[in-house]
Amino acid sequence: MDNLPMKKTLQEYVDAFNANDLEHLMSLFSDEASVEDPVGSPPKTGRIEIEAFYRESMTGAKLELLVSPRGSYSNAATITFAVHTEKKGHSIRIDVTDVMTFDSAGKIATMHAYWGPDDMQQL
Amino acid sequence: MDNLPMKKTLQEYVDAFNANDLEHLMSLFSDEASVEDPVGSPPKTGRIEIEAFYRESMTGAKLELLVSPRGSYSNAATITFAVHTEKKGHSIRIDVTDVMTFDSAGKIATMHAYWGPDDMQQL
Repeated sequence: MDNLPMKKTLQEYVDAFNANDLEHLMSLFSDEASVEDPVGSPPKTGRIEIEAFYRESMTGAKLELLVSPRGSYSNAATITFAVHTEKKGHSIRIDVTDVMTFDSAGKIATMHAYWGPDDMQQL
Repeated sequence: MDNLPMKKTLQEYVDAFNANDLEHLMSLFSDEASVEDPVGSPPKTGRIEIEAFYRESMTGAKLELLVSPRGSYSNAATITFAVHTEKKGHSIRIDVTDVMTFDSAGKIATMHAYWGPDDMQQL
């Protein structure tokens, strides 16, 4: 799969998230997508569950890309970023790597977000 | 799975690679491990294939960790780095994210290296 469209979609994902543009963000996903965020938690599957997840996680949060997206020789690509958000009045940073796979239409089919308990810090 | 031992192993992986210490590097892997580097290529499976792969890829190459390793709420963790190497007298940089899973003994069970054609650049 060509890497440039995957990377373009990942940049759109970050931009739509930061613009709080849920409609644009959801347009990047396949109807049958699944989102496991964090890896090890029950996946959100399908448009309704995924939209509910992003509506909640977008609130007041911003993504800061830390390095360039990585592609592959397959239908997968990654982004590595920090989430800046707030919890009970405290600034929180979560360090994350997302691995996304894409369907033949270029939509996100699966998303796995790698972050664990000690990747979240209160600043 | 506790994140700290996984992250410690990933740091050892980088240090052993950079020290050209193939024996130490191989001690981090399970006997039944598989390595898909890059993602989309045929996996190397088992100690003999994996050792041959690292003996070749270590030569003259150094890994530069770019951000902190990420853990998960499962048996997976990631590192994001640049490979600095040479090819036919030219300096090469490859931007990579590795996703590793670990067995119950804390050894690397699977490794997936995400990098595509345009993540390799001649400097």
